[in-house]
Amino acid sequence: MITDKIGLRVKELRTELGLSQEKLALKAEIDRTYLAGVEQGKRNPSVKSLEKIIYALGVKFSEFFKDM
Amino acid sequence: MITDKIGLRVKELRTELGLSQEKLALKAEIDRTYLAGVEQGKRNPSVKSLEKIIYALGVKFSEFFKDM
Repeated sequence: MITDKIGLRVKELRTELGLSQEKLALKAEIDRTYLAGVEQGKRNPSVKSLEKIIYALGVKFSEFFKDM
Repeated sequence: MITDKIGLRVKELRTELGLSQEKLALKAEIDRTYLAGVEQGKRNPSVKSLEKIIYALGVKFSEFFKDM
């Protein structure tokens, strides 16, 4: 499912940056438990919520989705 | 806003395919008025809703987001 793929990609980029879920959530101005749910593919984020996460990861949408 | 960029991209790909909003909405199994709202940037679709539209347009996420 797309939510699983997105979750894995968020986790991949977050760990590449050496950021904890707490740090990334703070940067993205979202709740830590919400971010955890997204990483686990349990949430179906809106594009605006996803945008916050993607920008906090320091990438563009094209880079985020490049292998999907 | 990301919703505007997504809306313009949906419209661009839909018109390239020569599809009406009705035809694309039917293919994506979503409401025509919902699709219209997405194209106008008035809706904030979830990634699962966006997936339906992107697949109905016959592209991958990477292709859809390539210039964003």
